[in-house]
Amino acid sequence: MVEEDPSSMSLRPGKTVETSDAMTEGTNNRPRDKAVMENKEDLTGFNVLYVVTQATGGLLCVLVLVWCSNYRDGFAWSVPAARFNWHPLFMTIGMVFLFANSIMVYRGLRNMRKKQLKLLHAGIHSAILLLIIIAQVAVISFHNELNIPNFYSLHSWVGILTMLIFFFQWALGLVAFLFPGLSAPIRAAMMPYHIYFGLTAFALAIATCLMGLTEKVFFVVKNYASLPGEGVLVNIIGLLFVIFGILVVYMVTHIGYKRYPRPEDNVLLTGVAE
Amino acid sequence: MVEEDPSSMSLRPGKTVETSDAMTEGTNNRPRDKAVMENKEDLTGFNVLYVVTQATGGLLCVLVLVWCSNYRDGFAWSVPAARFNWHPLFMTIGMVFLFANSIMVYRGLRNMRKKQLKLLHAGIHSAILLLIIIAQVAVISFHNELNIPNFYSLHSWVGILTMLIFFFQWALGLVAFLFPGLSAPIRAAMMPYHIYFGLTAFALAIATCLMGLTEKVFFVVKNYASLPGEGVLVNIIGLLFVIFGILVVYMVTHIGYKRYPRPEDNVLLTGVAE
Repeated sequence: MVEEDPSSMSLRPGKTVETSDAMTEGTNNRPRDKAVMENKEDLTGFNVLYVVTQATGGLLCVLVLVWCSNYRDGFAWSVPAARFNWHPLFMTIGMVFLFANSIMVYRGLRNMRKKQLKLLHAGIHSAILLLIIIAQVAVISFHNELNIPNFYSLHSWVGILTMLIFFFQWALGLVAFLFPGLSAPIRAAMMPYHIYFGLTAFALAIATCLMGLTEKVFFVVKNYASLPGEGVLVNIIGLLFVIFGILVVYMVTHIGYKRYPRPEDNVLLTGVAE
Repeated sequence: MVEEDPSSMSLRPGKTVETSDAMTEGTNNRPRDKAVMENKEDLTGFNVLYVVTQATGGLLCVLVLVWCSNYRDGFAWSVPAARFNWHPLFMTIGMVFLFANSIMVYRGLRNMRKKQLKLLHAGIHSAILLLIIIAQVAVISFHNELNIPNFYSLHSWVGILTMLIFFFQWALGLVAFLFPGLSAPIRAAMMPYHIYFGLTAFALAIATCLMGLTEKVFFVVKNYASLPGEGVLVNIIGLLFVIFGILVVYMVTHIGYKRYPRPEDNVLLTGVAE
């Protein structure tokens, strides 16, 4: 059965190699064997980076909360301007922080059983979908009450594309990898696309947030150009989105941090002892 | 000598595998051998995708030109508003279209000699630097003439970070991989970071462009919410940035499209027959 664990994803530069020894001296006629053996788990720096990544993501969520609470109108469903604030907060928590953690479970909780990791991955995705729905209702009802058209900005167009990719990944992932689960070769063939479009959606989520911040700050901070406290805060939030994205994608594509299949994964995959 | 070709980069999900046959039946005690052999060049769909990618990038540049010419003030250095337009045009051509092509040379021109590919990669980077300089002078002098502060927006903050990464990649790349060129193990160790931060800069360039479009369209298209022609054009340009980015990153991370080392690469690397 072919491994189709998303944790297999990695940028593998300089790993699948032809050694010059092999090529010039002919001492090794299977030069790639060595390279493959190099593809072993190497968790150097993993813990530090993981903590830094989670701290960055946590700080990001806190600063969005602080921004909406202290500089904007806080959180209340009955007041349109305050209702709007659920949108940036829940999209940040859902499409950025939780999405990152959904992707990272295969790295951060690498000793958990594969089936549990998949369930957790799918479970977090489902929680994100719930947050997205609330966040969308918040902004659409805010727009409607103030007679502002919906879905005209580039922020919303790219956001819709991002949510569509996210939704199809969730639905297809459930069917293909969890229940009922397709055959191993089909799963293996689908997995690269599941990973690629998962990371694409995550990157687009961050780009969409950056556009959302840009839009909002120009709308509400009239003296943005003189960089008042709120302007600086919004810019720092934007940089944190970027730094968080860089850290997360690194964590899940670095070859050494890959979770290699465990013997018990296979037992689970073959249905024995479940 | 360890291969340090940027074309080695790839997302490798489900490729480095443990087969269940191997694990449950013990018929294959070197299960990864098979997987490695699967990592061969597989150019299925490459030509079509390459043409679609280049066409998307070309269309993107043309539409930015059309936008600046037909809806904005065209191109003239003497008129501030027209001078500004060199900024979006040259940043799109430089940091997006040419940057993508600089990364893609290892895939698109895979039969060219390694040394020539490196020189082309570095050469395109140098041309981009020139375009960046002109584009920055254009916007800064436009701001100064209109008494608009420089570098206050999130667009500019993320843009500066992007340009810094790009610049260091160029400088470090020249020293490490071209002239004088560091030792093979050091190059091999650096290459994953060169690739990761290269793709990071490319993704950030696109995010920065999306913010730039967002900023500009809200500034200059007063009835943007009713989606006039210019609003639709800007949104389409934004989507093209996204689609182009998705295509380019796929092209350079897809394992089958990797340019595997050629025997003559090694001759070049070892300095023989250069």
